[in-house]
Amino acid sequence: MAKQKKAQRPKAVTPKGFRDYFGAEVEGRAEMLRKIAGVYHRYGFEALESSAVETVEALGKFLPDVDRPNEGVFAWQEADVPGGGGGDWLALRYDLTAPLARVYAQHRNELPTPYRRYAMGPVWRNEKPGPGRFRQFYQCDADTVGSASMAADAEICAMLADTLEEVGIPRGDYVIRVNNRKVLNGVLEAAGVIKSSGPPHDIQDITIELHYNEKIADAVLRTIDKFDKVGEAGVRELLGKGRLDASGAYIDGVGLSAEQADPVVAFLTSKDADAAGTLANLRAAVGDSKMGAEGVAELEQIADLLAAQGYGPDRIVIDPSVVRGLGYYTGPVYEAELTFEITDEKGRPRQFGSVAGGGRYDDLVKRFTGQEVPATGVSIGVDRLLAALHAKGRMQSETTGPVVVTVMDRDRMADYQKMVAELRNAGIRAEAYLGNPKNFGNQLKYADKRQSPVAIIEGADEKAKGLVQIKDLVLGARIAETASVEEWKDRPSQVEVPRDQMVAKVQEILKGQSQ
Amino acid sequence: MAKQKKAQRPKAVTPKGFRDYFGAEVEGRAEMLRKIAGVYHRYGFEALESSAVETVEALGKFLPDVDRPNEGVFAWQEADVPGGGGGDWLALRYDLTAPLARVYAQHRNELPTPYRRYAMGPVWRNEKPGPGRFRQFYQCDADTVGSASMAADAEICAMLADTLEEVGIPRGDYVIRVNNRKVLNGVLEAAGVIKSSGPPHDIQDITIELHYNEKIADAVLRTIDKFDKVGEAGVRELLGKGRLDASGAYIDGVGLSAEQADPVVAFLTSKDADAAGTLANLRAAVGDSKMGAEGVAELEQIADLLAAQGYGPDRIVIDPSVVRGLGYYTGPVYEAELTFEITDEKGRPRQFGSVAGGGRYDDLVKRFTGQEVPATGVSIGVDRLLAALHAKGRMQSETTGPVVVTVMDRDRMADYQKMVAELRNAGIRAEAYLGNPKNFGNQLKYADKRQSPVAIIEGADEKAKGLVQIKDLVLGARIAETASVEEWKDRPSQVEVPRDQMVAKVQEILKGQSQ
Repeated sequence: MAKQKKAQRPKAVTPKGFRDYFGAEVEGRAEMLRKIAGVYHRYGFEALESSAVETVEALGKFLPDVDRPNEGVFAWQEADVPGGGGGDWLALRYDLTAPLARVYAQHRNELPTPYRRYAMGPVWRNEKPGPGRFRQFYQCDADTVGSASMAADAEICAMLADTLEEVGIPRGDYVIRVNNRKVLNGVLEAAGVIKSSGPPHDIQDITIELHYNEKIADAVLRTIDKFDKVGEAGVRELLGKGRLDASGAYIDGVGLSAEQADPVVAFLTSKDADAAGTLANLRAAVGDSKMGAEGVAELEQIADLLAAQGYGPDRIVIDPSVVRGLGYYTGPVYEAELTFEITDEKGRPRQFGSVAGGGRYDDLVKRFTGQEVPATGVSIGVDRLLAALHAKGRMQSETTGPVVVTVMDRDRMADYQKMVAELRNAGIRAEAYLGNPKNFGNQLKYADKRQSPVAIIEGADEKAKGLVQIKDLVLGARIAETASVEEWKDRPSQVEVPRDQMVAKVQEILKGQSQ
Repeated sequence: MAKQKKAQRPKAVTPKGFRDYFGAEVEGRAEMLRKIAGVYHRYGFEALESSAVETVEALGKFLPDVDRPNEGVFAWQEADVPGGGGGDWLALRYDLTAPLARVYAQHRNELPTPYRRYAMGPVWRNEKPGPGRFRQFYQCDADTVGSASMAADAEICAMLADTLEEVGIPRGDYVIRVNNRKVLNGVLEAAGVIKSSGPPHDIQDITIELHYNEKIADAVLRTIDKFDKVGEAGVRELLGKGRLDASGAYIDGVGLSAEQADPVVAFLTSKDADAAGTLANLRAAVGDSKMGAEGVAELEQIADLLAAQGYGPDRIVIDPSVVRGLGYYTGPVYEAELTFEITDEKGRPRQFGSVAGGGRYDDLVKRFTGQEVPATGVSIGVDRLLAALHAKGRMQSETTGPVVVTVMDRDRMADYQKMVAELRNAGIRAEAYLGNPKNFGNQLKYADKRQSPVAIIEGADEKAKGLVQIKDLVLGARIAETASVEEWKDRPSQVEVPRDQMVAKVQEILKGQSQ
């Protein structure tokens, strides 16, 4: 009978892949988002908060052509419309860019052009969860919709640098790398893999041509993605006949000739000591491809704009080895990488890596309106950036708990709450112990669990004498850790002060603790 | 063909009952939530952010005993578990209290007791949307779990008062009303509607007895809910034989005798000039009901605690006519009401009404663990409070846009971006115009649409002379509105300054505008 009852009780667990965030985690994230919003705001971006729920149709990518369009998203069907079959399929947003496209298309007649907005909030992915991989996580985006100017892209890079410094990543510990999809297309053209017939700024044509040799172009893209791992020689083998990898397996090559591979390798290795050198190398790599030349010119504009604003290569560099996202974007691509070392789960030192990425995309709004709207933007991976700040020791992992006024006499709760009110009015975080006060040890255990800096004690004796006891819990913990109590004897962790000096004394102790 | 293409395009619309929030709306809410969090934090509450998604099982109330448990919630079923039938039903949280119960039950061995947490964020209701009623909205809660002390309830009331003042509702424009469910139960007992046999603090017993005469008790509850509308005489009729309402319809009464109705009416009209008077009236109304006496004693404790902390009846009052939520809670109930008048949609003056409510509930965690855990807490209706602040003129309805550096020569974008960088480094919100610069009028229209305070102009002439033009757009708009330009002639809305004095001049103009 008891067992049956227990079986009926719901399980108190989060769904798989979801988690709870407590205390300092929540406050640290809120504080970081506030700082990022401050920078985005100063740059002229407007806040936007769209709803977490969109129609599957508006989200795109996941069209309801299957019975349940839940590939990658959390989706459900609205209740039947009376007299009209099934309702809309709705879904949780999987990023902040797809909703932006919907918002811009919906409100474009009222919004200014260019529309510059920032957005921050959770997004949801219906993916297999893993260690450190959750199905709900935060993003923080800024985009300029309706501007074809490279100044919009350069500005995003500058803003990323300012943002990282604002949240506590010092200069020298990060670098923003910039690349350009058009340069890669130029390289593919120089390699004879794609052919660009239209005017080079007409992205439609590239798409068509890419489809023509899609398989080879995709294989080249996949290969350059491996540049970091296999190096120049490895990429040459993979672009050619193939390569025997470390495990002994033979990886088939793309099948390009050595001459065809040359521009690709030249592209990947074109980074030089300064932007001018890199750009010259890229110009050589794209040969006479118009598309490639346009891409190089775009990178040059970005480099010039950033130099004029004082963003040197210590913060932002043209780096053609950045290939992440090149397949998705249509022009400039940027990535913020943290360059300091951390120790990975196997104890090996490694660079922290990417915390933000973005680029130019021109076709998102077109889905809705038929009109091509140039847009560029960035997304900061909030949780990775928070992890980086923790790794740098820039985040408190624990908040300071409240001053706890203990309850020695439950009939004098009003006295204790009065003390609390005085402390709070002085701006001090404080509370009276609200559990069962019978066991005084439990009250101190509670203060300990809350990371309380100070406990206040006023028993009948103290009350009669007009005194209160103030316990410095931080000092007390330090004394408890130290073998010799001798050295602490002049600095007792508990002092007795007149009741009317309580607030001043607590302030003094808190000040001392924070030094 | 063109038509067919158009038909394939997705509609750029939010799902029914959802909306987008722009600029000042987003920033105003964020700022308000930050202030509320500051007060909650000072009171010793810890932040908690649980995921938006919970299992339907954990959320409770909506158990999966129907094919699709979407009554009131947005729910969906996880993909099939390999080899094990259907997956879990998941749902978006509909409030912040149900997730708190799950979190506390799940983590109770690690969490301090009492567990004091605050939470803020969107919740979702799958309800029919209406004007001003959305299916996603914000809540902001604080709860103390694991404390039976009335000090916990009194503290929530004090905190509510502090919070309202912190966000900009002045003292005198709000009142926190406190009532108690046990007093109502005592009244029902005095009226002979329910009978409390067990010890009065055992809520289980009340529930059993309530079931016994459930129909009558519910009818009495529904009747007292109408006290605000029909007054004492109306309630007497409705508790008795029935009442002819204003529309001419006859409403059947509960069927109590006049003697049975007496305690109920005494309860509803028991508010006196001070707490002592009200409590005396309540003591009379509950007669010899133990449950009622306990409820009155609880209210007395709360009143004493608040008086000791200096929260007088100008802020918090014992008011037995507050009946909202009495059916849900098990002890003290509180409600924050804004008392200033606004004009409703029909032009009639009316009081703004409730913006927050809460109370004591002892059975939420029991669902999971079988153990009764006393808890008390409050939920602020964030959107209603924001609306109230707008009504009081305490919220900016528009943000100040960025200083816009116009683009007179698109080849000198680097110069313009350098100006922008200087302004931003001085802490001024600024941007260069990033749209197509051909039509200068469009640039000023853009600045206007962005509510920009200042526009900067540097054409070839100015550049040659080392000057910039600075347009005070706020002043310009005021001049344009005024019939006589005469009075403005000494204060031109556009000034020319040396390039190196640009930042200082902009600062001066912005300072003048904010005065």
